[in-house]
Amino acid sequence: MHTASIESLIETFESLPGIGRKSAERIAFHILEHMTPEETRSMTDKILETKSKICLCESCQNLTDSSPCKICSSLKRDRTTICVVESPKDVSAIENTNEYNGLYHVLHGALSPMDGVSPDDLKINELLLRLTDGTVKEIIMATNPTVSGTATAVYISKLLAPFDVSVTRIAHGIPIGSDLEYADKITLIKAIEGRQEMK
Amino acid sequence: MHTASIESLIETFESLPGIGRKSAERIAFHILEHMTPEETRSMTDKILETKSKICLCESCQNLTDSSPCKICSSLKRDRTTICVVESPKDVSAIENTNEYNGLYHVLHGALSPMDGVSPDDLKINELLLRLTDGTVKEIIMATNPTVSGTATAVYISKLLAPFDVSVTRIAHGIPIGSDLEYADKITLIKAIEGRQEMK
Repeated sequence: MHTASIESLIETFESLPGIGRKSAERIAFHILEHMTPEETRSMTDKILETKSKICLCESCQNLTDSSPCKICSSLKRDRTTICVVESPKDVSAIENTNEYNGLYHVLHGALSPMDGVSPDDLKINELLLRLTDGTVKEIIMATNPTVSGTATAVYISKLLAPFDVSVTRIAHGIPIGSDLEYADKITLIKAIEGRQEMK
Repeated sequence: MHTASIESLIETFESLPGIGRKSAERIAFHILEHMTPEETRSMTDKILETKSKICLCESCQNLTDSSPCKICSSLKRDRTTICVVESPKDVSAIENTNEYNGLYHVLHGALSPMDGVSPDDLKINELLLRLTDGTVKEIIMATNPTVSGTATAVYISKLLAPFDVSVTRIAHGIPIGSDLEYADKITLIKAIEGRQEMK
C-alpha cells in the first residue's frame, strides 16, 4: 500500500528488463529517500542526453555516438569479414575477447514469428547492401544458439547464397572449464557433431 | 568496450541499489535500443515529477504526497500506539498485513557509528515531539533485528524512559512455515527466550 504516485514510479521501474517488483521498490525508495533533487536531475539528464546522442551506425547498425562508428571507420580492422550478431551487447562481448579484428553487423533482434518479429524488423537489407562492392569475403553468423537465433542464421545464409561470400556459423559445444556431466543433451550432441581433428 | 557515453549511462544505473553490472547494461541497452525518445522522456518526467511531489509527513516522517499523510490524518487509526520503523518500505510491509491499526514513525535509518549514522541523522527528536501531548500510550519498536536495528531500539527505549509510555519490541523467532532445522542459531535462541505460554 504505497501512495499512488510512489506506486506509479515503482511500476515505471518494474517495466524495465530484469527489474522485478522488489528491485523496483528499492530503486524508487532510494531515489525518494536518499538522492537529492540535484542527483535525481543529473540522473535523468544523463538518460536523456545519452538517448539523444546515441544513434545507429549507418554501416554496421551498432549503437554509436558518431556514424560511422569507431569500429567501421578504423583502418586497423579487417574489412573482409563481418560478424553478424543480434544485439549491441554481443558486439561488446566479442570485442572484450580482443581476438576478433573484423567488422560487425547488428541485426537488432532475431526472427520470431510468435513475437511478430519478421525479416523486415531486422537490419537484414542493410547487411546485403554492405556486400555489393565485393570487399567482404566471409560472414560469420554469431546469432544466439536459440531457436530464433538459429532460424535467423539459416534465413540469412540462404539470402547470402547469390553473393560470393563464405558463410560460417560460430561453434557450439561444451563451454571451456565446464564439465561434460553437466552439459545439456543438445549441447552435447552439437559438441559431438562439431568435433574437429586434433593436430 | 562500450562507447564512452553508453558506458557512462551504464554506470549511472549501476549506482542504484541492487543493480549490478549486467542489469545496468541490460537497462541501458533497453532504453537505447527499444524505447522511443517519447517513452524515455515520459520515464524521466515520471522520476522528476514523483521526486518533486513526494515529501516527508510532518508527523510520522513517512514519504507522502500530502502532509500530514493519509495514515496520520485518518480518523480510523488508533492514535495511542506508534510503531517505529527504519524505512518507508517497512510501513508498506506492515500495512500489507491489514492487522495493525495504529500510527507509524519512520526513523530513516538505524544507528551505525561505523557508517557515520548518529542519533542526529535519524528522526528521533520528531518522535519525542509526538509524545508531548500524552495521547500515545505504547511505542512498538519494529526496527530490524540486526545489530544496528537493535541498537537503535535500545537507544530510543532509553530516551523514552521519562515518558509515560510502554515500549515494546516486535517478537523475533522462527518464521511461520519455515523449518527449525534451517533456522540460524541466534534466531533459535531468540525463539526459545521469547517462548510464550500456550493457551
